[in-house]
Amino acid sequence: MSRDPSIPHIPPITGVEFVHAGGTGLCVRDRGPAGARPAVVLLHGTTATLGVWDEVVSRLGPGVRTLAVDQRGHGRSDRPPGAGYGAEEYAADIAALLRERGAGPAVVAGHSLGARNAVALGARHPDLVAGVVAVDYTPFTEPEVLDALHDRVRAGNRAFSSPREVECYLRERYPLLPAAAVRRRLRYGYRPAEDGWRPLAEPRAMLLTVEGLRRDFDAETRDIGVPVTLIRGEHSRIVSPRAFEATRELRPDVRAVRLPHLDHYVPEEDPVAVAREIHRMLDRVAVRGHPS
Amino acid sequence: MSRDPSIPHIPPITGVEFVHAGGTGLCVRDRGPAGARPAVVLLHGTTATLGVWDEVVSRLGPGVRTLAVDQRGHGRSDRPPGAGYGAEEYAADIAALLRERGAGPAVVAGHSLGARNAVALGARHPDLVAGVVAVDYTPFTEPEVLDALHDRVRAGNRAFSSPREVECYLRERYPLLPAAAVRRRLRYGYRPAEDGWRPLAEPRAMLLTVEGLRRDFDAETRDIGVPVTLIRGEHSRIVSPRAFEATRELRPDVRAVRLPHLDHYVPEEDPVAVAREIHRMLDRVAVRGHPS
Repeated sequence: MSRDPSIPHIPPITGVEFVHAGGTGLCVRDRGPAGARPAVVLLHGTTATLGVWDEVVSRLGPGVRTLAVDQRGHGRSDRPPGAGYGAEEYAADIAALLRERGAGPAVVAGHSLGARNAVALGARHPDLVAGVVAVDYTPFTEPEVLDALHDRVRAGNRAFSSPREVECYLRERYPLLPAAAVRRRLRYGYRPAEDGWRPLAEPRAMLLTVEGLRRDFDAETRDIGVPVTLIRGEHSRIVSPRAFEATRELRPDVRAVRLPHLDHYVPEEDPVAVAREIHRMLDRVAVRGHPS
Repeated sequence: MSRDPSIPHIPPITGVEFVHAGGTGLCVRDRGPAGARPAVVLLHGTTATLGVWDEVVSRLGPGVRTLAVDQRGHGRSDRPPGAGYGAEEYAADIAALLRERGAGPAVVAGHSLGARNAVALGARHPDLVAGVVAVDYTPFTEPEVLDALHDRVRAGNRAFSSPREVECYLRERYPLLPAAAVRRRLRYGYRPAEDGWRPLAEPRAMLLTVEGLRRDFDAETRDIGVPVTLIRGEHSRIVSPRAFEATRELRPDVRAVRLPHLDHYVPEEDPVAVAREIHRMLDRVAVRGHPS
């Protein structure tokens, strides 16, 4: 009955709740003062969970209200019946959440898939979005980049014999992640199944999600009327220099930040820089006169 | 984008966390002062979730620390790989949780399956258990009662076309439950799946759990050395008058309470009475000199 030494000690996932917004049950961590405006919504990338934002939340400090969300099909949120996993469905969930909580207009920070969803949300619902911080995802992503993402996502959908094997896999897949971030991905994103440890990310949802990324969002990026910051990791395998430049040409007015030494997984690789850009956006939209 | 009126408004499930105790990730709601001793652990019945204790927790009051748990295979907790769902496995999870939290010795209140698990835990780990409140489950349950339970559990494992249809089903299955308790069972225990709304309770786990109930626990009930209170609903279809009397003969020293007008689902049907018995147990074990 004493702890099995072959099982690493996995700290608890605290303070989450299940919010039934617009029919989709979302696992959400709502932290900080309920009255702090604008709130910050945090949207993870494909196959990830709200846990990728832990260090960013901590760097944002106790004065900021954050809503970190497991998006549909991910983490501990619902995989709705026969559902779509395109920009529209992802954005509708977050719009329903913001309405349910009365938390808009919010700054929406998204990484990868979450960046696409943040832009889609801001373009469709400017009443709910005060600003967008889009981390390492832009329009004009090359088809072969998405082919490679598809292959990685599919290869990740397997049973691992142990939590340690999951950690080894994650270390290889995300080489620039600090060890604590790797353990966090294990803790938030995997659980024992019949045949071993498996990702919580729902396989069908992941494949539909990657297919949905093939529909480009250059129109939404062109049309979005709220302030946007773009961030790119210098060694990103997802956003090519070409795609980043094309996006800057599409929107020469938006703040574009290149972070050296980083790969695609910027929120976990450099949470300080991401928190700094979110704070900058909070300052900017407060000056623009959004409710505060 | 406004709320779909065909979907009932489902309030959020707040303040839960995922505790990785002994290898099984358990969804737990840990409420009340961390220093309040003894803590009260709350174990639901077959197919249910920690939500069935909401009203009991509220009646226990803010001075009591409660740990309400989704047991393995139930709610949002893990369904561990190739796992067993007998008294031993259920009790081991709760023992690991109490050790992880440093929350023992605790009063363990269980309903139905949870009552069996509470007695098993108390018999195996008297160091972790200060007292047991066993609600509407005893040894000597007749095989035909478990056959009927098996059939109900199996019939409940299906897709429902809508949340409203789940509510209708639950109202019929649990006729004495207040409407709020029915909605709570929907909210905590169901979610959208590919083919409709389905119970979170894992089908294989449920069948193994009912099979596990066929191994009687008269020896544990005879041998358990910590104080025990037995509660029976007068119209229970699970604990027959004969089984209740046989248990009283086995342990004439334990407090046995019959509650009139109630069926099997006592914690939801009369949370005031259950909270009163838990408080009585807390007083009793404090007098016996457990750490306080």
